[in-house]
Amino acid sequence: VASDTRDRLIRTTSRLLREQGYAATGLNQVMAEADAPKGSMYFHFPGGKEELGEAAVDHFAAQLTARMTDGLARGTVRQAVRVFFDAYIEVMERTEFRLGCAVASVALDEAATHDRLAEAAGRAFRTWVDLMADALESEGRAADRSHDLATLIIGSIEGAIVMAKGQRSSEPLASARDALDHLLAGPTDPTTTLA
Amino acid sequence: VASDTRDRLIRTTSRLLREQGYAATGLNQVMAEADAPKGSMYFHFPGGKEELGEAAVDHFAAQLTARMTDGLARGTVRQAVRVFFDAYIEVMERTEFRLGCAVASVALDEAATHDRLAEAAGRAFRTWVDLMADALESEGRAADRSHDLATLIIGSIEGAIVMAKGQRSSEPLASARDALDHLLAGPTDPTTTLA
Repeated sequence: VASDTRDRLIRTTSRLLREQGYAATGLNQVMAEADAPKGSMYFHFPGGKEELGEAAVDHFAAQLTARMTDGLARGTVRQAVRVFFDAYIEVMERTEFRLGCAVASVALDEAATHDRLAEAAGRAFRTWVDLMADALESEGRAADRSHDLATLIIGSIEGAIVMAKGQRSSEPLASARDALDHLLAGPTDPTTTLA
Repeated sequence: VASDTRDRLIRTTSRLLREQGYAATGLNQVMAEADAPKGSMYFHFPGGKEELGEAAVDHFAAQLTARMTDGLARGTVRQAVRVFFDAYIEVMERTEFRLGCAVASVALDEAATHDRLAEAAGRAFRTWVDLMADALESEGRAADRSHDLATLIIGSIEGAIVMAKGQRSSEPLASARDALDHLLAGPTDPTTTLA
């Protein structure tokens, strides 16, 4: 049915954004890899490549939001951050460091020139920071401190993914994970200070 | 003279990588914006676009390495990190969030498919982490802790740049800066713990 084709187009684009970014991803490649019938692209995405890209960024962002929400519901921020990093390490090692972050890729290369892609990337980052900040605040941290720390956590996840792709190694993800784990150990833990 | 042309090609490519990434940057655009004579591209870069891209990543990385080295020579890690973030905030605001990080862009989109670009990005990240780790260790932190914390600092700089470009706002850079500033306040400072 038609909605299957739409889903395949979105999932294929999301994967290609993670592998190679927006500029290198052509509609012909998406159509071929999604096994999409001729004409289906503009039927589902009359706005063309940018509309498809926006849907793919939203799709990828929603997946990560769900995973973060689930992790935060199951344990402390410290535990959820560790689980999130470990899951990313597993995926990147299994795919030989081909899969990065669709949101980061679009943010870096397209935000300056494509309004809809910039908005999608901005939405994703703000959602993740707010989610993490709320969880930090519910653990007893002050609101402004929680927002700054949430930005550091989301930023270091994004940055460590960038470094892992560039170095073709999960080592940056493991090191950033351990530094955050130490940092989030909490005031009752004598190892709290990183200094 | 010939070497001026080579420099212009490298600097122009470095700027275009920061603005739009490698895939969107065509050699014709580089030649035009660098005002380079026909034939000069393959005279200076017989390896073509990837060799030019590698030189541009190395050039950009060396600039940031010099800036970090200078900052670390002038003060504490805490002070140097703050100065570095503030300088990036100034550049991004002045250029309306068009200029990101050439290394991050290449790492995210090209590392999986271009060996020379992956190597250049990996070199840059390792150089920055080592520089920061050495400085942290010289302030009295343990070696393994210094390496993890250095990875967190470099990762959060890269990630906050990505977020700032996506959100077209310097707010993520300011928030990550403040979280790191708090974290690096040191064991003699009662506000050290972020928890």
